[in-house]
Amino acid sequence: MIQVAVFGYGTVGSGVVEVIERNNSYVSANSGDKVNVKYILDLREFPGDPYESKLVHDVETIINDDEVSICCETMGGVGAAYKFTKMALEKGKSVCSSNKELVAKHGAELMRVAKEHGCAYLFEASVGGGIPILRNLTTALTAERITQIAGILNGTTNFILTRMEEDGADFDETLKKAQELGYAEKDPTADIEGHDTARKISILSDIMSGHFTDSDAVRTTGITGVTSKDITMAKEAGYSIRLLGIANRYDDDSVSTMVAPFLVKKSHPLAGVRDVFNAIYVTGNMLGETMYYGKGAGKLATASAVVADVIDAARKGSSTMYQGWDETPVKAASVSDMKYKYYVRCLDDKFDDVQAAFPGGCRIGKFGGESGFVTEEISGSDFEEKCSKLGDAVANSIRIYE
Amino acid sequence: MIQVAVFGYGTVGSGVVEVIERNNSYVSANSGDKVNVKYILDLREFPGDPYESKLVHDVETIINDDEVSICCETMGGVGAAYKFTKMALEKGKSVCSSNKELVAKHGAELMRVAKEHGCAYLFEASVGGGIPILRNLTTALTAERITQIAGILNGTTNFILTRMEEDGADFDETLKKAQELGYAEKDPTADIEGHDTARKISILSDIMSGHFTDSDAVRTTGITGVTSKDITMAKEAGYSIRLLGIANRYDDDSVSTMVAPFLVKKSHPLAGVRDVFNAIYVTGNMLGETMYYGKGAGKLATASAVVADVIDAARKGSSTMYQGWDETPVKAASVSDMKYKYYVRCLDDKFDDVQAAFPGGCRIGKFGGESGFVTEEISGSDFEEKCSKLGDAVANSIRIYE
Repeated sequence: MIQVAVFGYGTVGSGVVEVIERNNSYVSANSGDKVNVKYILDLREFPGDPYESKLVHDVETIINDDEVSICCETMGGVGAAYKFTKMALEKGKSVCSSNKELVAKHGAELMRVAKEHGCAYLFEASVGGGIPILRNLTTALTAERITQIAGILNGTTNFILTRMEEDGADFDETLKKAQELGYAEKDPTADIEGHDTARKISILSDIMSGHFTDSDAVRTTGITGVTSKDITMAKEAGYSIRLLGIANRYDDDSVSTMVAPFLVKKSHPLAGVRDVFNAIYVTGNMLGETMYYGKGAGKLATASAVVADVIDAARKGSSTMYQGWDETPVKAASVSDMKYKYYVRCLDDKFDDVQAAFPGGCRIGKFGGESGFVTEEISGSDFEEKCSKLGDAVANSIRIYE
Repeated sequence: MIQVAVFGYGTVGSGVVEVIERNNSYVSANSGDKVNVKYILDLREFPGDPYESKLVHDVETIINDDEVSICCETMGGVGAAYKFTKMALEKGKSVCSSNKELVAKHGAELMRVAKEHGCAYLFEASVGGGIPILRNLTTALTAERITQIAGILNGTTNFILTRMEEDGADFDETLKKAQELGYAEKDPTADIEGHDTARKISILSDIMSGHFTDSDAVRTTGITGVTSKDITMAKEAGYSIRLLGIANRYDDDSVSTMVAPFLVKKSHPLAGVRDVFNAIYVTGNMLGETMYYGKGAGKLATASAVVADVIDAARKGSSTMYQGWDETPVKAASVSDMKYKYYVRCLDDKFDDVQAAFPGGCRIGKFGGESGFVTEEISGSDFEEKCSKLGDAVANSIRIYE
């Protein structure tokens, strides 16, 4: 019998219990032994809940029970979650987590502690919800040198951008709709300002590079500056706008990481990722491009990823992932040096100035007294310098992902 | 040192050698030890080839060398490939294969032989080329009951359908172009008649069900009946036509498998899979939909998948896959019972007859004296019965995938 404890009985935690119970025949067969939830840790009471009898309030009960070999950390935050995770690992109990904040901040340390105690720290659900992207990077694309990871990693912002494009609605009204549907939090800052995506792309960068990427240092722009004018102009010219987290690895093993809205050609698979779905586009030196698509959030999808980690922990323990990352900082490449084409929106009467500043570019549309323009490839620093000279001639600018 | 032998020095085999050599630091680090190609088995001579010294003509040299722990079978066919694979497995050498024909026919037996001898029979490259779909099904989506797998599994036919749609070309001319570009064989029958897709969907069905699916029994329709009229009519109505292999699993664990062209809504991720790319769309009972996208063929992408198997064989041997399938036949569900909406093309003056036969359907377009019509959901047998009554009123019909 494989005895499991769940830390935190919120949305994902209750989903973990549900997946283990409802799919027990698959979960147990793939684990090589019967899997059972022995404890659920939460400060709250859940009177009448079918699993009420498993509820405990003191983590020590779990830590000191040698029968428990695997803990699922679905609490969130970097306080108690960090402490409890470390306690469990130090007792040789594997921990499977959905907590991206903790993984982004202390992942390397926790993986080291796990290794020292012959168990595993796994966190498939922390990036891309139900999409098995970490498992693909750490156990499938193992013959590859990965050179780029570009992802739609946040369902809230992707829903807003999709609805703005397809319904012609503006940002505020779409955000409100997302909140009504439960796709956006009351305080949507972490999503719409790109911080959630920054944490996830930093974890992907960690895995790609083998070294620590500080998510606070990821150059991050959210979607609040994207207007319905930009969406319309892009759409007419055959582009969708998507919030991407991008990590690029260069020949000298330096890595640049950024989060920003991008124009993506309609024919690119990332443009076809709609509403709350997520996708991660991975480029390897032999394989070329692959993409992994699915639900980036949601109770059961995220829980399914946590339980897949439980199965791996049961089967393979500390040898689950072929590669992780250490605590040394990654060699950071400057985002300002990266070259992109840029979309520029300007008033029609400023168009000549813009065109003069960016020779080789071309107009992609005219709409409501404004023009859309696409530059040739130019570095971020050169682009910003030219824009500052143009002053208020540039109403908005967005990079183009190709 | 992990000593590897490569059976067959053709396109994929030479790619395997190239991936192991060029990415040796990644391949060796992930394998846990230095990986080296010791032998290349081929009947031919390769004078001047950089790896000429590794060439042997007699399989016994490899089989009897206890240093060789892993063999890559990239020969194709079910004759010598079957014999050599079995010989290697019986000596406890793991075999990593790109040979879909052999896997579809003898996979269960070869997995059993591998297990009996404490080694692994792995074949990631046999389906979806460089897309790690088998690894995802057997080691990532392990908390799921998979209920449907639908895949674009053949690059040749997807290239033809994409070019017909985007360039407005007809079938014969596009096939010729595909042949010129090296995307189609001189004899393209196995691709365009759907047999290649049938082999791949039968392997996916094997894994989903745990039992053997006879690829010759998969209901298979190729793309030769898809005309530029159908492509245009579908396009105008917001659909792309894609050749899909589909395996559905029902509550009683019976499975239906088919290969056929389908109309796919432009907003569906499968419709965005263009040219020679492949994608597999997987539905699980907890996770919902996920999709895996990448190059379905090509020397280095396919070789990368073979080498990922080499790494798994080196790390985990016989415990690599959590689930395989046995030699007992899967309980087959009838494709004729499956309900789909159908697209029907007819002459305008027969439209009333078609509409009368399929109440609740609607016209989706008119083009060149013909009409396109979409029925409500109907079983395959009922549809065929109605069509036979309509006689030559129905110029063509294609299922709709939703």
